[in-house]
Amino acid sequence: MEQVVADERTARAAWSGLVEPGDDVAGTLIATLGASDAWNRLTAAVRGGLDDDGVVAGVRALLPDASAGAAARLERAVRRWAPRLGRPAPTGATGVRVVVPGDDDWPAGLDDLGPCAPPCLWVRGEVRAVRGTVAIVGSRAATTYGERVAYDLAAGAADAGLLVVSGGAYGIDAAVHRGAHARPGGTLVVLAGGVDRSYPSGNASLFEAVLSAGGALVSEVPPGALPTRSRFLQRNRLIAAIGAACVVVEAAWRSGALSTAHHAERLLRPVGAVPGPVTSMASAGCHRLLREGVAVCVTDGAEVVELAGAIGPDAVPAVEDVRRPTDGLDEVGRRVLDALGTRVARSSQDVAQAAGLGVAETLGAFGLLELEGLAEREGKGWRRSSKMT
Amino acid sequence: MEQVVADERTARAAWSGLVEPGDDVAGTLIATLGASDAWNRLTAAVRGGLDDDGVVAGVRALLPDASAGAAARLERAVRRWAPRLGRPAPTGATGVRVVVPGDDDWPAGLDDLGPCAPPCLWVRGEVRAVRGTVAIVGSRAATTYGERVAYDLAAGAADAGLLVVSGGAYGIDAAVHRGAHARPGGTLVVLAGGVDRSYPSGNASLFEAVLSAGGALVSEVPPGALPTRSRFLQRNRLIAAIGAACVVVEAAWRSGALSTAHHAERLLRPVGAVPGPVTSMASAGCHRLLREGVAVCVTDGAEVVELAGAIGPDAVPAVEDVRRPTDGLDEVGRRVLDALGTRVARSSQDVAQAAGLGVAETLGAFGLLELEGLAEREGKGWRRSSKMT
Repeated sequence: MEQVVADERTARAAWSGLVEPGDDVAGTLIATLGASDAWNRLTAAVRGGLDDDGVVAGVRALLPDASAGAAARLERAVRRWAPRLGRPAPTGATGVRVVVPGDDDWPAGLDDLGPCAPPCLWVRGEVRAVRGTVAIVGSRAATTYGERVAYDLAAGAADAGLLVVSGGAYGIDAAVHRGAHARPGGTLVVLAGGVDRSYPSGNASLFEAVLSAGGALVSEVPPGALPTRSRFLQRNRLIAAIGAACVVVEAAWRSGALSTAHHAERLLRPVGAVPGPVTSMASAGCHRLLREGVAVCVTDGAEVVELAGAIGPDAVPAVEDVRRPTDGLDEVGRRVLDALGTRVARSSQDVAQAAGLGVAETLGAFGLLELEGLAEREGKGWRRSSKMT
Repeated sequence: MEQVVADERTARAAWSGLVEPGDDVAGTLIATLGASDAWNRLTAAVRGGLDDDGVVAGVRALLPDASAGAAARLERAVRRWAPRLGRPAPTGATGVRVVVPGDDDWPAGLDDLGPCAPPCLWVRGEVRAVRGTVAIVGSRAATTYGERVAYDLAAGAADAGLLVVSGGAYGIDAAVHRGAHARPGGTLVVLAGGVDRSYPSGNASLFEAVLSAGGALVSEVPPGALPTRSRFLQRNRLIAAIGAACVVVEAAWRSGALSTAHHAERLLRPVGAVPGPVTSMASAGCHRLLREGVAVCVTDGAEVVELAGAIGPDAVPAVEDVRRPTDGLDEVGRRVLDALGTRVARSSQDVAQAAGLGVAETLGAFGLLELEGLAEREGKGWRRSSKMT
């Protein structure tokens, strides 16, 4: 990988093959010098080998003005990068593009990661986010309930035009893509390994369906890279950053989905959690997020859209309670109505006493109840309207 | 009811038969004059009849210093009380006691209702609240899930010594009493009608079981009084006031249990809501309370006790996450472990490159992993410990 590179895109791709996800020293170097200048200085610096004098000299060449502390961090970073410098540069794969900051399809939310942002994304398919984005995540070990709700929430969000972001795992992730991929917003699958690998293989046909429907698979590691444990954990920060909000559908008490939620919280994204039966361990992590005040309770697609969107246009419409004929009554009217029988008419004196009201108040209420069709006269007394029973 | 009464207990019992629950004018009059003085002045004032001059003169006699506005409110109140003044005073029933403020078994929380507090409680059985109280309420139209959770939460709270308070309805209320009545804290059933009536009749044997176990039935209306709609709504304020906290187990979007929760909120009681499947309409009201920030998420008996109790002694112990052998590893150790194979040993150079780490860092991590029993040497390379796989 030691050839001189002139353009930023090629240099960012090279950096993505050199460093592990989330390497903030690399991110700072790229932000300070530009990706190609940083790359060329690095390869020049270690050309002389990694004996102590060589590294110290190399680090000085990278950032001549670095403080002693920064130089020491840089030296450690160069030592961890060096073993990979002998490998060939990542070459990409058929149908895989390199997307960098400034490109139309670079997810703007990634910039909030600062120096921990990936140097580039490796992309299969099209990243579109016309109206906004939302991350919907959850456990591999999902229940039928969780998968059904994940499908419905994702479908509702994508129907509203939101790009739905999730991982590529079995369980909730897969249900999310199934619910959203063929709808207006579409879906984005963020993988921990290379986008040319279908991992897990059982989701290969789902990934193809996402691509056929105009969605995308993305990763910060080059084609061919393995999905290691630490890459899975780092991948979660990308999902959290790309989404404008993060919803957890099912998560056990200790779950990777909770790490995504906490990344979202640190990025000041709104976090939602879907409740479930308290008897279900698969919902224990969601209830933990609710109890700790990290997440708000989310129960349907409209509430997902509200969480991810602007407060005005995307707010959930207030639920219109079903109107009942008695809704307009005041306390006096209700009490009088309660005191009326359905079959036998009662005198106003009797009704007043039963309702704990004055006779004049009671007579006034009769008038209103009659107008509303709730009560009717019979002889000298009153009873409930027969239409109401 | 027009006889002169000399003692406060008898006067409060008489007031409870005269006014409807929550009558704040009666409450203010009793607080200002004392129950017997207020009663005797009232009966004297209306002895002359309720023609306009009589009422105005009577009101003046009740509170000579009342402002014009207060006098007008008093006059309306006297007019609504008058129709019942001709009835005999409530006489009680076998095994029913009158409990008034200052009695040992007067629930102190009722005082927070101010002028809306009941003049007295009519009580069957014993009110005990050794360690504290909690209200647990919910819908009549409960699911099997809701009844099971209600039973478990109530049992947990009563096992911790809390007196559990609820209504007497089918569904959640009944499950609460079933769960708690035979445990140390016991239960209190707050009825909307007289405590001599078993309403609903299907819960009669449950009420007897509560009494046999040392619990109580209480009401603010005298024996014989009907449970009317407005009395049910007012009854909810008593449940909310008696409990030091209020937990809603299941409630539809529009439910009496929500009115209890809102009473508790206004009384500055902590409110909890038990989540359930978002697909269950019986949990929609609980999710509404969570979304609106009225309630915190409650999932087990320990969390109920925490909600109702002092912060220190009753706090839910932090859940000890299950320790894994890899929990002590730092990022470098994790990455090196990830890069090791289980069968084939790899050289330190290979492992460093796979993990994206320097060779020296990698060698240091091998030492720690070996100490933890996570990795082992083989020839010149390293692999995961066979004990770990």
